[in-house]
Amino acid sequence: MFSERMFQLGSRRSSIRELFEYGKMRAELVGRENVFDFSLGNPTVPPPEEVKDAIINIIENSDSVAVHGYTSAQGDASVRARISEHLSRKYRLSVSPDRIYMTCGAAASLVISISALRYCDKDEFVAVAPYFPEYKVFVEETGAAFKTVEPDYANFQINFDSLSEVVNENTRAVIINSPNNPSGAVYREETLRNLADFLCVREAEYGHPIYIISDEPYREIIYDCGEYPSVMRYYSDTIMCYSYSKSLSLPGERIGYIAVSDNAKDSSEIYAAVCGAGRAHGYVCAPSLFQKVAGEVCGIHSDIGVYRKNRDILYNGLTDLGYSCVHPDGAFYLFVKAPGGNSISFGKAAKKRDLLIVPGDDFGCPGYMRVSYCVSTEMIKRAMPVFKKLMEESCSDNIGQ
Amino acid sequence: MFSERMFQLGSRRSSIRELFEYGKMRAELVGRENVFDFSLGNPTVPPPEEVKDAIINIIENSDSVAVHGYTSAQGDASVRARISEHLSRKYRLSVSPDRIYMTCGAAASLVISISALRYCDKDEFVAVAPYFPEYKVFVEETGAAFKTVEPDYANFQINFDSLSEVVNENTRAVIINSPNNPSGAVYREETLRNLADFLCVREAEYGHPIYIISDEPYREIIYDCGEYPSVMRYYSDTIMCYSYSKSLSLPGERIGYIAVSDNAKDSSEIYAAVCGAGRAHGYVCAPSLFQKVAGEVCGIHSDIGVYRKNRDILYNGLTDLGYSCVHPDGAFYLFVKAPGGNSISFGKAAKKRDLLIVPGDDFGCPGYMRVSYCVSTEMIKRAMPVFKKLMEESCSDNIGQ
Repeated sequence: MFSERMFQLGSRRSSIRELFEYGKMRAELVGRENVFDFSLGNPTVPPPEEVKDAIINIIENSDSVAVHGYTSAQGDASVRARISEHLSRKYRLSVSPDRIYMTCGAAASLVISISALRYCDKDEFVAVAPYFPEYKVFVEETGAAFKTVEPDYANFQINFDSLSEVVNENTRAVIINSPNNPSGAVYREETLRNLADFLCVREAEYGHPIYIISDEPYREIIYDCGEYPSVMRYYSDTIMCYSYSKSLSLPGERIGYIAVSDNAKDSSEIYAAVCGAGRAHGYVCAPSLFQKVAGEVCGIHSDIGVYRKNRDILYNGLTDLGYSCVHPDGAFYLFVKAPGGNSISFGKAAKKRDLLIVPGDDFGCPGYMRVSYCVSTEMIKRAMPVFKKLMEESCSDNIGQ
Repeated sequence: MFSERMFQLGSRRSSIRELFEYGKMRAELVGRENVFDFSLGNPTVPPPEEVKDAIINIIENSDSVAVHGYTSAQGDASVRARISEHLSRKYRLSVSPDRIYMTCGAAASLVISISALRYCDKDEFVAVAPYFPEYKVFVEETGAAFKTVEPDYANFQINFDSLSEVVNENTRAVIINSPNNPSGAVYREETLRNLADFLCVREAEYGHPIYIISDEPYREIIYDCGEYPSVMRYYSDTIMCYSYSKSLSLPGERIGYIAVSDNAKDSSEIYAAVCGAGRAHGYVCAPSLFQKVAGEVCGIHSDIGVYRKNRDILYNGLTDLGYSCVHPDGAFYLFVKAPGGNSISFGKAAKKRDLLIVPGDDFGCPGYMRVSYCVSTEMIKRAMPVFKKLMEESCSDNIGQ
């Protein structure tokens, strides 16, 4: 006698994890150098040296009881003050320390934010495709309905026709993710202004707030688009979900935060509900040492030079081979159109050649493949002949159709 | 528009936290030396030196990408192997590494275990009073009913008459906590055998398993009762929820684990449901550095000499003053009968004198007060005259009645 839902979630791994485990198994069988694993979004650039220095400094020079003790449930007050100051200085956002809640990473941030906004049985949460597949798990865990907006296949911005159909009076929040996993697209200022305008009109129509939940762990990993346009600047009913997993290459340490705009409607109530939801899900406080580390290195991030180099080699290589790709301005994913259009069968053909890429179907975007390029540059180069063969096969044998 | 339930949970602090915050405020007003704060269960003994050594060693000598990267959702395999071996050697338990799931501490362990066992709308979870108040929050978060067993006022073991009335065919699990917060009692072997016998009979009667969820973060903090009797040895349908918060004085780092007995009914399905519940609540993996630290220092714990000394001074001091206390064999709490019998009014009278102790009402045990002695020995000594005054007042003015 156990929860069938939890059993299913626990025994069926996500397709990404599945592929990753398969890759490990194949590496043992045929040798690591013969497996081309582009499945996982695990940073390969080391954390900046400042992270190590901060850890050693805190451990060597602070009282251990204070370092490892409970912080307040909201998080260490001085760390929250530094983050507040950083958000103001870098993104010109107004988020006071008492609107910041330290979390165990982005997944926790999302679960907690969604739970905080649950209002009634009819609640719907809308994700803009392509979206990270776990959004569905998190929304459904709270008992709400998960709705999706069709991709904008032209530019991988937001498909406003679809959004307009999906958002209704039961919509509690729209979940966006820019820089986007899996497409690598960064929402432009114009997109965000249009989104804000659209939601303002709907808020007025329905007479209640519609929040944006902005999942932005990749915001420091941008290449050519200048300043990161933060949606909170354009729309105040925004709850930011942040994680240091990618920017500081600390995915295993589970450290991030939720920031509720000072100017959001019901800002203080939403924040209290965030605190309550953290408590209800068993998040007593975020890991204390890494809260302090995050405070110490505020504003610093890993060197993304390698990701940029990988992106250029991969993007140029694949387009030269005839692949059609979204040009990624951020994150470390290339979103490639499956030659022939069928991502599942193309993924299978690739898997036969030990090239592991993730079909876009789970991201709400069939026909595309996610290629993670947070891998060694050398593996990308070695994989090019395999991509070439797959394209040739695809043209002659119609795989992927 | 937000979740009323989460708002309430977030804006009304637990009474323990409330008292703690009051204490900080008073300390600023009247001076730290004039406030006697016995409210929180925050370890004051530093982590063992081996923890610091392990952190420095890992940070200095391991590849930073591996140290801080995602572990598998279950937790680092070598760490789970060490824990499995430790549970076998120290407590003679049979828990294979693939039945261990690393968590962000005891609260996470509990939420996840309860979620994993949720079966249908009628599910009930039973806690044996006195119990940690957050159990109610965690059970109700999953939508199940929270039921309680009356305290055994004679010995603070288990009141089997009450248990017998409360357990029924809808009971999914009985939650126990030994060494107990707030009473400090340690369940004796005889108690655990009786509990196992009782549940075996009921399992047979209802034709389905009834699990024990054993919340045991204090098991290394025991004083006079020899070997810790682990309930899993007596009853195989047991899910152990463990945390290093108290044994290694790392409460802020959020590191612990769930262990499902190899011999539990549906052991592998329960374990899969645990993994699924972790995923659904947003726990991607437990903090990776501290997973590795926990593996390195497996079997080591903080020096509990100070707690023992505090216990003796406090227990002897209060009984000499005429207080009636449960003799605590473990944890770092003294459970004192409120003179006059009313814990709320006695707590208020104490608060007026800046002596902060927690009424037992929230623990399902009115008439008692929890006095945390994980404080400085010197504060305990300074507090004795205040306890004396309160007892005198209580005898003359009938406070606490």
